[in-house]
Amino acid sequence: MNVLILGGDGYLGWPTAMFLSNLGHNVAVIDNYLRRSLADELALPNLSTTLDLEERVSLWGKTTGYEIKAFVGDCCDFEFLSDVVNRFQPDTIVHYAEQPSAPYSMIDHSAASLTLQNNLNGTLNLIWAVNKYSPDCHIIKLGTMGEYGTPDIDIEEGWININHKGREDKFLYPRQGGSLYHTTKIQDTDLLWFYVRMWGLRVTDLMQGPVYGCFTDEIRMDERLNTFFSYDEIFGTVLNRFIVQAVCGYPLTIYGKGNQIRGYLNLIDTINCIKLAAENPAEKGELRIFNQFTETFSVNELADKVIEAARSIDLDVQKKSIQNPRNEKEEHYYNPAHTGLTSIGLLPKELTNDVIIEMLEYAIKHKENIIRDNIFKGIQWKR
Amino acid sequence: MNVLILGGDGYLGWPTAMFLSNLGHNVAVIDNYLRRSLADELALPNLSTTLDLEERVSLWGKTTGYEIKAFVGDCCDFEFLSDVVNRFQPDTIVHYAEQPSAPYSMIDHSAASLTLQNNLNGTLNLIWAVNKYSPDCHIIKLGTMGEYGTPDIDIEEGWININHKGREDKFLYPRQGGSLYHTTKIQDTDLLWFYVRMWGLRVTDLMQGPVYGCFTDEIRMDERLNTFFSYDEIFGTVLNRFIVQAVCGYPLTIYGKGNQIRGYLNLIDTINCIKLAAENPAEKGELRIFNQFTETFSVNELADKVIEAARSIDLDVQKKSIQNPRNEKEEHYYNPAHTGLTSIGLLPKELTNDVIIEMLEYAIKHKENIIRDNIFKGIQWKR
Repeated sequence: MNVLILGGDGYLGWPTAMFLSNLGHNVAVIDNYLRRSLADELALPNLSTTLDLEERVSLWGKTTGYEIKAFVGDCCDFEFLSDVVNRFQPDTIVHYAEQPSAPYSMIDHSAASLTLQNNLNGTLNLIWAVNKYSPDCHIIKLGTMGEYGTPDIDIEEGWININHKGREDKFLYPRQGGSLYHTTKIQDTDLLWFYVRMWGLRVTDLMQGPVYGCFTDEIRMDERLNTFFSYDEIFGTVLNRFIVQAVCGYPLTIYGKGNQIRGYLNLIDTINCIKLAAENPAEKGELRIFNQFTETFSVNELADKVIEAARSIDLDVQKKSIQNPRNEKEEHYYNPAHTGLTSIGLLPKELTNDVIIEMLEYAIKHKENIIRDNIFKGIQWKR
Repeated sequence: MNVLILGGDGYLGWPTAMFLSNLGHNVAVIDNYLRRSLADELALPNLSTTLDLEERVSLWGKTTGYEIKAFVGDCCDFEFLSDVVNRFQPDTIVHYAEQPSAPYSMIDHSAASLTLQNNLNGTLNLIWAVNKYSPDCHIIKLGTMGEYGTPDIDIEEGWININHKGREDKFLYPRQGGSLYHTTKIQDTDLLWFYVRMWGLRVTDLMQGPVYGCFTDEIRMDERLNTFFSYDEIFGTVLNRFIVQAVCGYPLTIYGKGNQIRGYLNLIDTINCIKLAAENPAEKGELRIFNQFTETFSVNELADKVIEAARSIDLDVQKKSIQNPRNEKEEHYYNPAHTGLTSIGLLPKELTNDVIIEMLEYAIKHKENIIRDNIFKGIQWKR
C-alpha cells in the first residue's frame, strides 16, 4: 500500500512512518518543519535531540533496508502538495500536518491566525489534491476528543441520532472545543464532511485523546530514531510533562481542582490505530469516525499514578494545584464511547506501572537537558 | 450609537449603512471592494451601475446631511481592522465582509481557497480586534439559513436541547451546509461560539435566507444611491435572477424538480432585522441566534409567483427545469422556526404581487444592460 504521511516529522508522524514502512508499506512523508520552527522560536527544546527528517529516513534506510521518501515542503502550498499526491499516488494519506498545540493557539493573535490558516488551508488543499489526482485515496485525518468538549450527555463516536418533536435524523455529534486549536479541528471536520457529501471522498476521522510515551519497536532498533518528547506547557502532553517534572523535583502541576477527565492513549496505540484504519478503509462517500483512546483518567488520577510508579524507583514526587490558566470545567460528566477501533482489532495497551517507569527512566537518562523554567509559564485562556 | 459595518459596500451592507445613518446613528463602513473585483474578473456586471463607496458616502452626505465614514481596506489585514476599531470605538459591528456566493466557492480550488481564507481570517481578526479595543461591542454576524441544510427534523433557532440516554444538554443546532461558502459560515459560527465562551463577547448571529429586492426608503431618495442588483448565476439570488429572466424572455431556470424549499426575505426586512438586533443587543457572554426570513417557498412556488405577477403587466413568462448543477435534495422536509426577530419587533414584509411588479419594472428600466449569457453557466457542485 502507498501511504503518504502529512506532518511525517512530528511526535506521532515519524513513529507512524517507521511502523508502516517496517510492515512493508511504501511510505512517503511530507513536513515543513513547522513544529520544530515554533519550538525553536519559543526556545522550547525537546528532552532529547532528534535527527532532522532527511537524516531520519537515511538512518531508517541503513537500519532496515526500507526506503521512506521525504518531501520537505508545506501542505499550504497547493502546487507542492498536488504534485506529491499526483506523483506518489497514495492509497492512504494520514493527515497530521497541523499546528498541534492548544496553548500555542491561545498565545496571541498571531499564533491564533497561524493555527487557523495552517490547519484549514492544509486540509482544504489536501481535499482538492486528492479529488483531482487520487480520488479513491483514503484520507485518515487526526481529530481530537477535545472537539467534543465535556457535554452533559454521553459522547458517541462522531455521530448522534437526534429525536426531536416526533421526528428523527442523524447528525455529526455536536462539537465545542476548549481552545482555538480544538476549534480548528472542528472546522477541519466541517470541511471534510462537506466534501465527503459532495464528492464521495472516503475519510476516517480519528478523535484522539492526549498521547503519552516515547517508545515503539522501531525506536528501540536505534535510539537515534527517537521522536519528539516535549515536556513544556505548550508542546508537552500532560503525562509526558508529569514524567519530566517527576524526575527533576518539580511538583506535578494540577490545573485547578484536577478533576478534568480525558481519554488517554499510548504512542503504540496511536500507530496501531492508524495501521488498522488504513487496512480497513472507509467506504467511498463515508466519513467514518472513531474515538481513539484507551482509558479515561482525571488529571489527579494521572498524577497519582506517576507518584506511585516513581515511589517504586525511590523517587519522591509531589503534586501541587495551581490556578487554572485554562477556561474549562473542573468537574464534569464524561462518558465517551470508544468501541470502533477495538471492533477492527485494536488491543489496547494500558497505562501500567511498568509503562510509567520506563518513561521515568528515559527522562532520568536525559535529565541534564531539562530546562525547569520551560515547564510552566501560564498562558492564559481568559481575556 | 456608533455602528461599524464590515462589507459596507455590498448588496446588503450599503442599504444597511444608509438606513442606520438616516436613523441618526454614527455609521462607518469598511470595504475592500472584493465583491466588485470578483464580479469584474468574471465579467458579471450588475443590472445597473453603482457609485463606488467614496462617491456613495459623498452623495449620501449631500442628500441627507449625515456623514458615513468610509474606510477602504481589508478585514483580513489585522492592523488595519484593529486601527479602525480602536479609533471608531463602535457600540455595534455588523459583519457582512464575506465572499458571499455559494456558486463562486465551488468554481475551483482557487475560488474555494479565497472564500475560506477571506471569510475565516476576517472573522478571526474581528474577534481579536474587538476583544482588544472594544470588548463590550456587540458583534452582529450575518450567518445563513443554509448552514442548517435540510435536516429531517424541525430547524430551531440556532440551539437545540438534546435528550440522550436519560441525560440532557443544550448544543448549537447541528449544521451541514450545501456549499463551501455555507461551510465557511458554519466555521465562522464555530469561531464566534468558542470566543464567546472564552472571553464573554456579545454576539448575534443572524441566520438569513436568500434576500430579494432593490428598494429601501433611502434608495428612493436618489436612485444613484442604489445597491448591487445581480442577476447572474454566481452573485444573483434566485428571485432577483427570476425577475431579470422574466423581463428578457429567458425561461425561469428551475434546478431539477424545483421542490427545494428555502426561507426568503425582502431587503427591507434585512435592514430592519439589523436595526432591531443592534437596538436590542445580546448579553455579554451570549451567542444569540435568530433565523432571519419571512416566508418559505419552493423554487417552483417562487417561479409561479413571478409568472403570475408578470402576467398582470402583460409579460408572458415560462419556467423550465434543467439538470441541477448543485448536489442538493430536491424533495425534503423543511420546518424552520423564526419567532425571535418578530419577538423583538419585526413586522415582516411579504412577497406580494406589488413587490414583484416593482422589481419587474426596475428590471425593465435597465433591460438594455442584461447580458443573457451571464444568467446561467452551470457551475457544477459534483466532482
